[in-house]
Formats: sequence, structure tokens, C-alpha cells
Amino acid sequence: MIETRGYATHDANAKFVPFNFERRNLGDHDILIDVQFCGICHSDIHQAKQEWGPSIYPMVPGHEIVGRVSKVGSAVTKFKLGDLAGVGCFVDSCRECSACKADQEQFCKVHTAATYNGTEMDKVTPTRGGYSKHHVVDEAYALKVSSDQPLAAVAPLLCAGITTYSPLKHYKVGPGSKVAIVGLGGLGHMGVKLAVSMGAEVTVLSTSPSKKDDALKLGAHHFVVTSDKANLKPLKGTFNFILDCVSADHEMDMYLNLLDVYGAMVLVGLPENPVSARAFSLAGNNRTLAGSSIGGIKETQEMLDYCAEHNITSDVEVIPITKIEEAYERTIKADVRYRFVIDMSTL
Amino acid sequence: MIETRGYATHDANAKFVPFNFERRNLGDHDILIDVQFCGICHSDIHQAKQEWGPSIYPMVPGHEIVGRVSKVGSAVTKFKLGDLAGVGCFVDSCRECSACKADQEQFCKVHTAATYNGTEMDKVTPTRGGYSKHHVVDEAYALKVSSDQPLAAVAPLLCAGITTYSPLKHYKVGPGSKVAIVGLGGLGHMGVKLAVSMGAEVTVLSTSPSKKDDALKLGAHHFVVTSDKANLKPLKGTFNFILDCVSADHEMDMYLNLLDVYGAMVLVGLPENPVSARAFSLAGNNRTLAGSSIGGIKETQEMLDYCAEHNITSDVEVIPITKIEEAYERTIKADVRYRFVIDMSTL
Repeated sequence: MIETRGYATHDANAKFVPFNFERRNLGDHDILIDVQFCGICHSDIHQAKQEWGPSIYPMVPGHEIVGRVSKVGSAVTKFKLGDLAGVGCFVDSCRECSACKADQEQFCKVHTAATYNGTEMDKVTPTRGGYSKHHVVDEAYALKVSSDQPLAAVAPLLCAGITTYSPLKHYKVGPGSKVAIVGLGGLGHMGVKLAVSMGAEVTVLSTSPSKKDDALKLGAHHFVVTSDKANLKPLKGTFNFILDCVSADHEMDMYLNLLDVYGAMVLVGLPENPVSARAFSLAGNNRTLAGSSIGGIKETQEMLDYCAEHNITSDVEVIPITKIEEAYERTIKADVRYRFVIDMSTL
Repeated sequence: MIETRGYATHDANAKFVPFNFERRNLGDHDILIDVQFCGICHSDIHQAKQEWGPSIYPMVPGHEIVGRVSKVGSAVTKFKLGDLAGVGCFVDSCRECSACKADQEQFCKVHTAATYNGTEMDKVTPTRGGYSKHHVVDEAYALKVSSDQPLAAVAPLLCAGITTYSPLKHYKVGPGSKVAIVGLGGLGHMGVKLAVSMGAEVTVLSTSPSKKDDALKLGAHHFVVTSDKANLKPLKGTFNFILDCVSADHEMDMYLNLLDVYGAMVLVGLPENPVSARAFSLAGNNRTLAGSSIGGIKETQEMLDYCAEHNITSDVEVIPITKIEEAYERTIKADVRYRFVIDMSTL
């Protein structure tokens, strides 16, 4: 086994502490990654605090992982020593089912091995994430990362990037599309950058007037404060696509009514309580309310390549791992523009 | 003006009574239809009883209208004397906006003139529907009806038919599709016939075990009783498309969870109270919850032609107009297989 070191939490109320553990020895198809940066995703916090059902402790979170390949298995072809590599939200799946064959491994019919707080394909061995010095992963579930971009700012693409890219692509956002991004946080700021890069006319809908300057700096064409509903009236029936990045409970109808014929609103913020909408809000203009969950390996690679080509990264605040508790607190308060990334050299 | 006679209700609690009124004289593009049959849609009842907001009285409902053309305006080209013609849920729209230009006149940005309980394009003159001897309509908003099918059974296609056809087509249901129809009533029985004709593998999900024989007779391949949730377990993640034809309040998550990757559930039953779903039910498998509202003139004609070609009509119970109150009561109790149609020769 390979000795490594990370930061773990030992129960829902515990603080993070240094944690020594082992990674598996490299199989023929595995690569060893010396982790350089790992993003902090809001879902790390939900799971560390056991807010999404039972968690597996000790937990080493982190699924926005980038680093350098320091060892490769005998059959590895995609990576060589010294390459940059990334790992996102899952590290294995059955590879045989209809979902895996459709490059949607995140919906594997057998088992998707989550990068942390999950289990390997044996459904027994716990998985541990990127708040650690080393990671071992099958090359089929690792991503190629461009060396042309600042690595810390690439890390959040592995979750926040693909989460927003996938629905924008699926709903064919492009030149001529009128897109609204609801909520300007970790996901929303990626949504703005990506939708703008795809040629859409982008409006940020936010409850915070203070986000206006940022929204425009990120490339948004319009900014509308939603706390005054009168502002929404002229927007009724005008958007082709709305990306809803808000994780707090919020009303659906006021946004759905902004959609044009066959328009779609996609939830990526995933509020904990059920969302509620009038059937007439959906039937009017044949509207769609959908959800979207990250993306498969193929699409994640496509997204990374797209971001490299279009020079898109996340806006990040890099922190030493000792500041993780503070970063969690500030993330909960949405006091980050727009993603914390841990510099693993500080461990 | 053209004198005619119909059945009207004079307020939300009144019974239907005979009612003499006038249709406009034919404009250059108008046709006069001698109405032969008119279907009873559940939405007639909602509007007659003012359950969907303020209604316009006296109200002559009816938007599943078929009859024979008895007079044509000077510029009419689509119809000649003696042709069969149909009228659905709307009789005019602006013809200029993006929705009209996209053949989605039901979502006209200016005004859609509902066939009854609405107003003409002047937004003043009330519209009156098909529970009447004559109808005058612009030929652009009238449909060609095949003479090869029993006319009474064609009438419900104008609403129940297009309501179910449009989402099945939009979501590309065809050979290989696994489709569930929730609720076997006026809409559901059309959904089964159409989905089967399109080559899908069709399952009827119903709370009533008594509907099984009918479902299979209509062509469904499977029938599952949903009141025992254990029956749904093996169906988890298996359907590509679910057509939800239930108008009573009901749970969404149990059905959403039956959808495969990128599967869609479309509401056409339109419950009065808001529908509610967990965001995770939508994000899992990237699922869609959508609404659908009838269809434009072009698609309605396409549906009628499709039904003529595939020999599809509605299962109907033809009644004299004097039995309208009884038919309303039985429709409310879902005691009809599957659509009442008024024989207008009884007026």
C-alpha cells in the first residue's frame, strides 16, 4: 500500500484534523497523482456534516482534484510521468451498463464509486478524496489537464465546471440563446463564463444588488435584481434557458414564467426541500423543469478541453489546508468569490 | 349576423339551458360549420364551474368540434362546401409573433382567442364554443377532417388527441422507447393508443386494478397497479418517457424515479395545486419534468392526418345534448370510457 496523508473529519460535528491513511498499490491501469490543488465544493460541507444522509467516517473530502502524475501502472496509455491529471466526482463504475455505455457513468446502474464518502466497486472499501497528498485512480476515470492554465483555478472545473457545462451543452445554448443564470456563486459564476463563451445573451438574476459589478465583469450582458418582482415582469416568456444555481429553498414559478416556448430551467443548486411549481407554469409555453448532475468522463474531458481552448477557469481564493474550517464557514455564508481551493503543498 | 342555437350556462352554479345567439357573418377567410359532434373535455367543466379563475357568461363550452362546411367566404381555399372540418381549443391568434411564426399559436405573445370563455382578437367580443348548431371560424384555424373515420370518435382528437400527441412527438417516442402512461382516462387512453402506434413499449400505471383489461385492449403491453409501491421498485430508472394524465393532486417523486437517464415526465393532466418534487429526483439521471399544452394548428393537422392514417380515434359515448348535466357528473367521477361526445343533431 502507499502511505499518504490528508485532512479528515471523524464525525458530523468534528473539526478537520491531519490523517494518515493508505492508497492502494497501483494496478496495471492505475496512476498515482501527487495532488497539488483541491477545490472546496459546497457538497463537501453537506457530506462532512452528514446533511445528505449517513456519511462514512473518517472522511477525506474533495472531488475537484488536480496534480501531477508521479507513477503509472504497466498498462497505462493515457498518462505519462509528469503529466497533469484531474479527478472529479467519481473514480469508477461498472463500465458495462446502458448508462456507462452512454458515457453517463455518474448514473451507473450498478454502482458509481464516488470520489469520497462512497465505496469502491466492491461496495465495501471506503473511498477518500482530494484533501490529501496522493491519489490513486484508474486512468479511465482520470482527466487530462492542460498545462496552459493556472492549475489552482482549473481544480473547480472538475465539479462546478462540468455541473454547469453539461446542461448548457445538452440544451444547445449558443449564439441567439437568451440565458439566465440564477444565483452568482461557485456554480453561477462558471455558468456565466461558459454561457457567454458559447455566444448566448446572458442575464444574471440575483437577490443581491452587490453582485452586479461582478456579474458584468464575468461577462454577463444584463443584471436584474429579483427581490423586486416588478423587475421580472418585462422578462416574462423571454428566456430559452435558465440555469438555477441556488441551493437555498426558493420559488420556482417566478422563474419558470420567464421561459419562452419550449424553454428549460435546469436545477443544479439542489435545494434540500422539495421544489414546488404550478402545473400551469409548466404547461404554459411547454416549459421544462429539469435537474442535472455533473457529467460523464467523456463530457468532463470535453469541458476541460473547451475551457483550455477558451481560456476559462474558476475565480478562486487559494488557502492553506490549515484554514479549512474558516473556508467552510465562509462558503456557508457565500462569502467567497467564487471558490476556495486548497494548496496541498501546505499539508 | 347568423342566428344559431346552443346550450349555455349562465353562472358557475347554473344548469345548462338552450340559448339562442349569433355568429358573425362570414368574412372572406371564414367558413360556416354545421356542427355535428362536440366532445366534452374536463376543462369544459372547470370553466363552466369557474374553477380556473373568472369565467365569461353566458358560456357555450366545447372545443372538440367537428361538422360539415355549409358556407365559405370568398377567399377560402382550404375548404369547399360539404367538406368535414374541425375546430380545437383556439380560433385565432396574432399570426405575427415568434410563437405564431413557430406554429405555436396556443402561446401567441399577443392574444390567443380561446374557442370559448375567451375573446376574439379585439379582446372584447366573447367567444362561444361547440355546444351549438353552427360555428364560424377563419379557415386558418380550422382543421381538415378525414371522412374515413367515425366522426363522433374524431371529435375528441381536437383536444385529447393533440394534448397527448404533441409531447409524444416532441420527446421522439418511437420504436425502442419505453413509455409509461399514468392514469387511464380521456387523455390516458389516447396516450396509450398513440404511443403504441408509434412503436413504443407501453406500460399503463394506474391506481385502479379494474382498468387492466381496458389498458391491454387499448394496446398497452404492461399494466402496473401503483397503489402498491412495491410494484414500482423493479421499474426504477427504466422509462424514457412518462405521460402523466392525472388531474388530481398526486406525488411526483415516485414517478420521476422511474425515469432512465435523460428521461422526461410530461404533465398534461394539470392538477390545480402546485406539484412538488425533490431536486434530487430531477438531478438523478438528469430527469425532466415538463408541461405540455395542446398544440399549434400545423401539429394538430399533422395529428389528425396521423390518426386517419393509423386508424386511431377516441373511445366515445355519444349522448344527446339533454344529458349534458349527467355527462358532466359522470366525467367528474371518471365514469366514462373514455370521452362523452354530444350529438348536435339532438339540439
